[in-house]
Amino acid sequence: MSLTVVGSLAFDAVETPFGKRDRMLGGAATHFALAASFFDEVHVVGPVGDDFGDEEMAILSTRGTNVDDVERVAGGKTFFWAGKYSANLNERETLDTQLNVFETFEPKLSQASRDADVLFLANIVPDLQYEVREQCERARFVAMDSMNLWIDIARESLEKVIARVDCLILNDEELEQLTEAPNLVTAAAQVLQMGPSVVVAKQGKYGAALFTADDHFWIPAYPLETVVDPTGAGDTFAGGFVGYVAAHRDQPLTPAVLRRAMAYGTALASFNVEEFGTDRVARLTADEIGPRVEQLVQITRFESHPLTLRG
Amino acid sequence: MSLTVVGSLAFDAVETPFGKRDRMLGGAATHFALAASFFDEVHVVGPVGDDFGDEEMAILSTRGTNVDDVERVAGGKTFFWAGKYSANLNERETLDTQLNVFETFEPKLSQASRDADVLFLANIVPDLQYEVREQCERARFVAMDSMNLWIDIARESLEKVIARVDCLILNDEELEQLTEAPNLVTAAAQVLQMGPSVVVAKQGKYGAALFTADDHFWIPAYPLETVVDPTGAGDTFAGGFVGYVAAHRDQPLTPAVLRRAMAYGTALASFNVEEFGTDRVARLTADEIGPRVEQLVQITRFESHPLTLRG
Repeated sequence: MSLTVVGSLAFDAVETPFGKRDRMLGGAATHFALAASFFDEVHVVGPVGDDFGDEEMAILSTRGTNVDDVERVAGGKTFFWAGKYSANLNERETLDTQLNVFETFEPKLSQASRDADVLFLANIVPDLQYEVREQCERARFVAMDSMNLWIDIARESLEKVIARVDCLILNDEELEQLTEAPNLVTAAAQVLQMGPSVVVAKQGKYGAALFTADDHFWIPAYPLETVVDPTGAGDTFAGGFVGYVAAHRDQPLTPAVLRRAMAYGTALASFNVEEFGTDRVARLTADEIGPRVEQLVQITRFESHPLTLRG
Repeated sequence: MSLTVVGSLAFDAVETPFGKRDRMLGGAATHFALAASFFDEVHVVGPVGDDFGDEEMAILSTRGTNVDDVERVAGGKTFFWAGKYSANLNERETLDTQLNVFETFEPKLSQASRDADVLFLANIVPDLQYEVREQCERARFVAMDSMNLWIDIARESLEKVIARVDCLILNDEELEQLTEAPNLVTAAAQVLQMGPSVVVAKQGKYGAALFTADDHFWIPAYPLETVVDPTGAGDTFAGGFVGYVAAHRDQPLTPAVLRRAMAYGTALASFNVEEFGTDRVARLTADEIGPRVEQLVQITRFESHPLTLRG
């Protein structure tokens, strides 16, 4: 009984209006694992280079995450990404991307990783996502992320993976791009015809939305006065969301469970953005999370009330 | 006991991916009044030209809105705005703005309009908003809108009006621009120090947020599969929000009342965008609104639930 994630382990260089880091641990699988490890034993699958040290491995192993399938490529360098955020953090510019060991990555899953009953395919080239998905025959819930690049250059491969997963987690604009739908509601309805039974639309600082055949749910981002670095927020959200689902794998996946999963993902993501990189979530403790989930209940709740209108 | 709105009455030319209208009734006061008239007797104050005909006046008068203070400027032309929306309706380009009668507008309020106990100052030049606000001495709740232009070129005048109102309703990015705050939560907190006791952040297709000294509330936009023309959505939202407050003027302005006001504003705005201009809200009936408010309750509700986390 475990949760496997396949995706990037990286060094990030990030500049925001609140500071600058030249080299810190990042990558989708890293952020995902740090969040999901609150809910389940996580197995991380991804490549690193010689420059990935004990310190990074220790952070990745937080809360017992299994790193046996982190593949160290001798003579290789770890994936590197550099980006700069705009004044209000709404936009970011990629300054540098060095694929390094990712260029020739072929996921090799140990039996333990293949035996996972929950699987998250972080954003990597769709053909690799497909291979991994097929290796995990016992997975009862498979979720995936992707990005605009693959919609542009590998749509066919991407659609082939999407057809084989239970849940697609994507930015709202990417969902619209994927389906060529004029709005999110229509886009989500179309994705539900492509294979997944659950669609999650990430809306950045505005929150996230959930769509299934018989449920719609919208949750705002957790309101923060301090946002330092949005890098990894989406993957942290996914870690909280998929982690929550994994922790409830023995229950039916009801709207109530999925909605709470959205709330946990939202709460986790809010911690991620408060500090650079993995700093905040790596030292986060379990008792800090519940109060933010409860606060999300409080700031969204209202009662309808009979009212006689004019006209 | 009535609700006065001062603002623009206009002809709009609008092009969206779903169609094109060369000339239709628009203007902030128009959209506001059509929504607010479900809740209270609305008095509209604003100038029109000779080209504003009986048909437009009839739409404006929907649900008993009082148009005695609509000033017809002999020989003048009605304010005209032309704009074009992007494919996903997220952005719009202003193609033409003709102030016409608005250029020399000096609001003249009848005693009936001055006696309003609720006042909405739609987006017009701040000095005029201030004049009107001072004329309405009996107003117990005054709300206002504005725009980035006035923050840029008339900040001092704008801050003077803001200091005299109970509620500022602005786009989230305008709130950030006004306060030079790096995020919405900080911006709203700063506006609460400038005079208003209620701040509403409009977030376009993502919804809206409410801030008071002791409450935060976030509500998504009502999910729609058909969005045809976003023009006037913000003013329709304001009409529903301020209208709901007006209808409950004899009760304390509790978080529960304000949250429901946000839901009514959201529901009203959702009808507005389904068709061009005023078409949908002009023929909207009272019994159509409640179900959307109830639906908003349903798509945002979740229960927190004790969960033992790892780590």
